[in-house]
Amino acid sequence: MNYLINACTGLLYEIREKNPLIHNITNYVTVNDCANAVLAIGASPIMADDNAEVEEIVSISSALVINMGTLNKRTIASMIIAGKKANELNIPVVLDPVGAGASTLRNKTVQEILSQVKIDVIRGNLSEISFIAGFKSSTKGVDTAIVDEKNDSAGIAKLVSNRYSCVVGITGKVDIISDGIRFAKVANGHKLLSKVTGTGCMTSALVGSFCGVTKDYYTATVAAIATMGISGEIAFEKAGVMGTGSFRINIIDALSNMNNTIFLERGKINETKY
Amino acid sequence: MNYLINACTGLLYEIREKNPLIHNITNYVTVNDCANAVLAIGASPIMADDNAEVEEIVSISSALVINMGTLNKRTIASMIIAGKKANELNIPVVLDPVGAGASTLRNKTVQEILSQVKIDVIRGNLSEISFIAGFKSSTKGVDTAIVDEKNDSAGIAKLVSNRYSCVVGITGKVDIISDGIRFAKVANGHKLLSKVTGTGCMTSALVGSFCGVTKDYYTATVAAIATMGISGEIAFEKAGVMGTGSFRINIIDALSNMNNTIFLERGKINETKY
Amino acid sequence: MNYLINACTGLLYEIREKNPLIHNITNYVTVNDCANAVLAIGASPIMADDNAEVEEIVSISSALVINMGTLNKRTIASMIIAGKKANELNIPVVLDPVGAGASTLRNKTVQEILSQVKIDVIRGNLSEISFIAGFKSSTKGVDTAIVDEKNDSAGIAKLVSNRYSCVVGITGKVDIISDGIRFAKVANGHKLLSKVTGTGCMTSALVGSFCGVTKDYYTATVAAIATMGISGEIAFEKAGVMGTGSFRINIIDALSNMNNTIFLERGKINETKY
Repeated sequence: MNYLINACTGLLYEIREKNPLIHNITNYVTVNDCANAVLAIGASPIMADDNAEVEEIVSISSALVINMGTLNKRTIASMIIAGKKANELNIPVVLDPVGAGASTLRNKTVQEILSQVKIDVIRGNLSEISFIAGFKSSTKGVDTAIVDEKNDSAGIAKLVSNRYSCVVGITGKVDIISDGIRFAKVANGHKLLSKVTGTGCMTSALVGSFCGVTKDYYTATVAAIATMGISGEIAFEKAGVMGTGSFRINIIDALSNMNNTIFLERGKINETKY
Repeated sequence: MNYLINACTGLLYEIREKNPLIHNITNYVTVNDCANAVLAIGASPIMADDNAEVEEIVSISSALVINMGTLNKRTIASMIIAGKKANELNIPVVLDPVGAGASTLRNKTVQEILSQVKIDVIRGNLSEISFIAGFKSSTKGVDTAIVDEKNDSAGIAKLVSNRYSCVVGITGKVDIISDGIRFAKVANGHKLLSKVTGTGCMTSALVGSFCGVTKDYYTATVAAIATMGISGEIAFEKAGVMGTGSFRINIIDALSNMNNTIFLERGKINETKY
Repeated sequence: MNYLINACTGLLYEIREKNPLIHNITNYVTVNDCANAVLAIGASPIMADDNAEVEEIVSISSALVINMGTLNKRTIASMIIAGKKANELNIPVVLDPVGAGASTLRNKTVQEILSQVKIDVIRGNLSEISFIAGFKSSTKGVDTAIVDEKNDSAGIAKLVSNRYSCVVGITGKVDIISDGIRFAKVANGHKLLSKVTGTGCMTSALVGSFCGVTKDYYTATVAAIATMGISGEIAFEKAGVMGTGSFRINIIDALSNMNNTIFLERGKINETKY
């Protein structure tokens, strides 16, 4: 356990040393907050989504984050082109399946991305990851059984992790991160985070930032999710009573002030068995 | 009068109880503020604009807000598809005709939307609503006569309301809301609101939020416009002297802290005859 | 020198008197901050990028700002259409070549814009302007020689200025502005500005705002760049230790509070020989 928290702080340090470039193909709702979150944690964001340039942009980047927040045909094509190029170059790819389950377009897109791109980390909420766990509706057996137990985050994380050979991060009241073998629970965060748009998107952008400095994507995902949770707690303490506008600004403040001391003091990370 | 204010606070309460999903097809300038305003008042925003998914998204929503801020051919088509579906399902449709009168594209688009979609509420400034009142430039008679008297907000509201069988909300120094029969004046607000981009767009997103919990779109529009005005006043008192950046954040703060006590204390709502 | 600072403050006054309309074709990452920066300094922003309306929109505007932050085929076409119309009407055109040098799409686009549109001001960082200085990679001689000395901002500014008959503003630790003959150095700013996305884009939007009230684009560019630098300093003093979220909000606050007294007190502007 101490090992995992320490490993997280090591990555935090490395982001600020190496300043990795993080390529985001993302939505126009929360893109500014994502860019500022990436900067605040010490990485550099680049937002580029045209199919004429995404291969070049991802080639100079240390990680790619694909966020499905505001899909359209033009950007879906770019996501897949960029993802394939990232795979070719061994650049980690993070997928945020925003709204998976909410429309046929989103359902098809997540399936298409997962079938054409090797994803290294999927970060979503329980509803989105549950959808991914069960989207082959004709599938019977273990998968379906597990998905039916909607509250079993660890089981769903394990299932999706094994099926796609990736790390899965499910954020919620308690976050669960798994690589299919290991399971970490992060008990940081604050309920007000759900009252600000983009806190999930920012978390995924942070996952990309941490993946940009290590090949240990499991630890990177734990570190990113805990970083966001801790920042939410600090932001609430500083500005929660003022309202959600100030709370949002204080999330970025907390990210920019994050350091190993704060992380070690506040991180509530536990590895569990499944 | 007391009846109207009380009805407004009832809706405010209901938004927080029911947490309606509000589908926004909007511009990329102010979309983040709109999403955070909707969350702050207690509803849930969903921003989706691809024609492949807007029918499904609007079908699970309690209201649709169409905002013309940054038009393009792709999203115009989506606006109309989503609007027709909303009509079919009796889901309220709010139109914010941003920039109507400023370009042929905007003029044609507002005409196209109004001819193909039954709009329940139009929320704009006097210039935009005046354009709608008079856009058939060949029209003679009463319409033109009324539009010529540019300062007659109530007359323009009545005209547009009757022509499109909808509620009209004209925001300005004093806001006027009409369903063609009733007229409410809202004297809340602060002039600094015009120095922050998106305060009009946020108002329309709030109109959608209130329409998501009632079929009384007139009261919903009054409530939303007064909520924004009161929030602007509070934001100015708390942060106006600091500058427009802090003022903007405090608008969201005030929205998230809005409650019946504040609304009743500060609401300056009067019904008038025309 | 005193002359230049005084001329800058004169323009600041004029923006607030004349409230010029500034047409921005820009990226979806920082567009909200750009609009709020333009409002804060006293101008009015209009963000419109569809090829069906950009000619009309630019025709009613006092300046056009073209920002390459998130390029795509649709908006590239609009940039050129709007730029040509602006040229026809003698409306100043500001180019922010975001990411020039980072991808073939960006390189081709900047070349295409510069060959088809008469640009009045180019505002970028040293890397972007260096790319423009040397983009004809087969070119030998003086150009290449100068570009090779990467730190010679003044030389690069002069080269680009002469080649395109425009004002060039290179922002960095010390900013340099040149019209090919005169050279101004601005020593304002704060390093934290590089930790917030969009501070460059906002600077370009301010250049457009200042160009909207004068034909002296050199002074306008000096004034805009110094205004941003001073605002960064004030924002750091007020909120720097709080974090980059608060710092960003305080930049807008400082812009909205900018006045001649502050500008004269803090402006570090020197004209130099080359």
